[in-house]
Amino acid sequence: MSQPHPIIGNLSALTEYNRSRVVRALYRRGVCSRADIARETGLTPTAITKITGDLIALGAITEVGDMPGRAGRRSIGIALNGTGLRVIGVTFERSTITAGVFTLEGNPLDGAGSRAELSIGTGEHAKDVVARAQDWIRGRLEADHAIVAVGITIPGPYLPQDGRIAVVTQTNDWESVNFREAFVDAFAVPVVLAHDAGAGALAQQLLNPQCRMADSLAYLLLGEGTGLGVIDQGQLLVGAHGGAGEIGHISIDINGPVCKCGNHGCLERYCSAEAVRERLIASTPALVEDAERLSPIEACRALFALAAAGNADALDHVRELGRYVGYGCVTVINAYDPEIIVLGDLMAEAGEPLLAAAKAVVDERVAPALRARVRLTLNTMGGDEVLSGAVALAIEHALGNPTAMLPR
Amino acid sequence: MSQPHPIIGNLSALTEYNRSRVVRALYRRGVCSRADIARETGLTPTAITKITGDLIALGAITEVGDMPGRAGRRSIGIALNGTGLRVIGVTFERSTITAGVFTLEGNPLDGAGSRAELSIGTGEHAKDVVARAQDWIRGRLEADHAIVAVGITIPGPYLPQDGRIAVVTQTNDWESVNFREAFVDAFAVPVVLAHDAGAGALAQQLLNPQCRMADSLAYLLLGEGTGLGVIDQGQLLVGAHGGAGEIGHISIDINGPVCKCGNHGCLERYCSAEAVRERLIASTPALVEDAERLSPIEACRALFALAAAGNADALDHVRELGRYVGYGCVTVINAYDPEIIVLGDLMAEAGEPLLAAAKAVVDERVAPALRARVRLTLNTMGGDEVLSGAVALAIEHALGNPTAMLPR
Repeated sequence: MSQPHPIIGNLSALTEYNRSRVVRALYRRGVCSRADIARETGLTPTAITKITGDLIALGAITEVGDMPGRAGRRSIGIALNGTGLRVIGVTFERSTITAGVFTLEGNPLDGAGSRAELSIGTGEHAKDVVARAQDWIRGRLEADHAIVAVGITIPGPYLPQDGRIAVVTQTNDWESVNFREAFVDAFAVPVVLAHDAGAGALAQQLLNPQCRMADSLAYLLLGEGTGLGVIDQGQLLVGAHGGAGEIGHISIDINGPVCKCGNHGCLERYCSAEAVRERLIASTPALVEDAERLSPIEACRALFALAAAGNADALDHVRELGRYVGYGCVTVINAYDPEIIVLGDLMAEAGEPLLAAAKAVVDERVAPALRARVRLTLNTMGGDEVLSGAVALAIEHALGNPTAMLPR
Repeated sequence: MSQPHPIIGNLSALTEYNRSRVVRALYRRGVCSRADIARETGLTPTAITKITGDLIALGAITEVGDMPGRAGRRSIGIALNGTGLRVIGVTFERSTITAGVFTLEGNPLDGAGSRAELSIGTGEHAKDVVARAQDWIRGRLEADHAIVAVGITIPGPYLPQDGRIAVVTQTNDWESVNFREAFVDAFAVPVVLAHDAGAGALAQQLLNPQCRMADSLAYLLLGEGTGLGVIDQGQLLVGAHGGAGEIGHISIDINGPVCKCGNHGCLERYCSAEAVRERLIASTPALVEDAERLSPIEACRALFALAAAGNADALDHVRELGRYVGYGCVTVINAYDPEIIVLGDLMAEAGEPLLAAAKAVVDERVAPALRARVRLTLNTMGGDEVLSGAVALAIEHALGNPTAMLPR
């Protein structure tokens, strides 16, 4: 599980760190015995007894009855008592802010006001957009005291030292917003802010059963932009200034067209929703009617629908996109050597034909010893994908601070 | 400092972990007071008193007299007592094995038998090469009981699960060698084995005063091959199978010439010593006489000598190489966002013209917000660069296990 290096300077910090290890083990495994937790964490039985006793007294975990133990003996099952706790996830995308309230298990809360979609006007000032998001968060926190953390994702590197986004190919005036002041320092509960692709990798690790044990994974975010989150040795790759994983701006052709970032032949120039839309507009005869009137996302979905219906030209477009995704995967494997690459967001909706085209490129272009060890997959997590990264950030924070996690 | 996630399951593991933090702080800072160590590690004064007392009793550290303290008070200086301890470094390169005995400070030992260079014959079986290296290590360990660890670097990803190298573009039959059996399990002292570029990054962090505080750095190994070591949040990036940082096989042109690894337009095709030699052979009129008779390393050194003497054509060749290095740096920045990129090994001998050409590419092709934050530099560490990575691996192991570090 992704966790920062602990600074264990005194007994209370050590206590909280060891509690968080027990809580994470329970989150990861569901109901299990004290002996299971001891095996998973490496903590001694004596320490487990003490920590679980404290966490039961605090109301963070509960004994849930007998379960089969080793050597035929019965042992007492323990479970995380997080059902009463909630988190907020907020996702900033280029044209929308999505926000929602979730349980600690990552399930969306039903009910009026538990979810919002705020459109961002083309000319709207970033500070006005921020104010609307702040209002929504403030309203939910006032209404629901079981919310223990807020996770926020933004499309691009976040520079925590500055509190700002390193604007690469963004519209609006996001560079004028101090996110630390506007969010991190603005509420009574902890607010965690990160790059959307990095948070997406965390979501795979925390919430996708297929990845739940992976200490090493890459999440390739194929949406309006192209991003990447990498987990290495259980830890999210961050970079010195929060800018690691800018795969969208890695060149796949140094002689290719120039990008707004300054680089040439950036992967994003070939993989983004806008690139797909441009190829559709250029196609003759027109494959998608009036593609120039559609938004990039709409154009992609129109293409994917045609391909799913068996249109051969549409399938060719999807396969071309898949090959570019494959070039990106080859770079990811050589750069990070992950155990698994999850292809997620909008482009994953193109499904198997896209995955197959990407795999064919990887089969051809990665050294066999490395190729044999990496798994490529579409994101199969389902659920509320757009918010899963933000929700994972908040859950991750709560699990890392189990005492503070108790309801206000 | 690079350190694995601690598994602190019991008191003795916690004790060793906390001792290693004190030892690392002393290694990093040199002589300092208990109060300095408390500030750097976050450990309480009580814990520091206990740990330093234990380490003094064990002979690992010593009090070295008064030093100026805060508020005008004097305090007692403490220093690491590693002068009696030694490590072995062994570097496998394509055509040579270099080995040497070093102090814990990273200084080479003088005296007969403290250093060896073993040439690898073109057709020589890898197992015979390995046997010669084993013999040398065994001889040194028998002669010198102050040697506490061995570090070994190999040119390519090491797959620790298999104990083998993932052969990419290697000659000889290295894939037949089980390095774990041959080295890691073969001696009474701990043996640490890693990819040369990753170890090179560690050497920068541990031994280069310019990088000593960096929690985030990239070491671009520009030698016979092209490799990369990355430290993120103080920790060496490894990958799921030891293959992270294969920058030499990241494509800078998906339509470029095919590489032995299967990829097209690999950076190494443009940056390696062999690529420089090929460009020299193709140059008309011949810039370097009989370039085809020179080894790739010799060809590079002949070119660099001409450039240093002011030959304009030679300078053009160096600048071309520098531009390719620059494309590699642009990828490194977008992929890993390091604080500093150190250009090291053979190509660093080309000096300022190479660095200037690389910087010009980075200036042009990296988004300004990110460009402003990253520093590019030639490796200025000096000393025994070829062995510094292997030596750093061994020192790193010793610092992480301070009790075990005591002489046999």
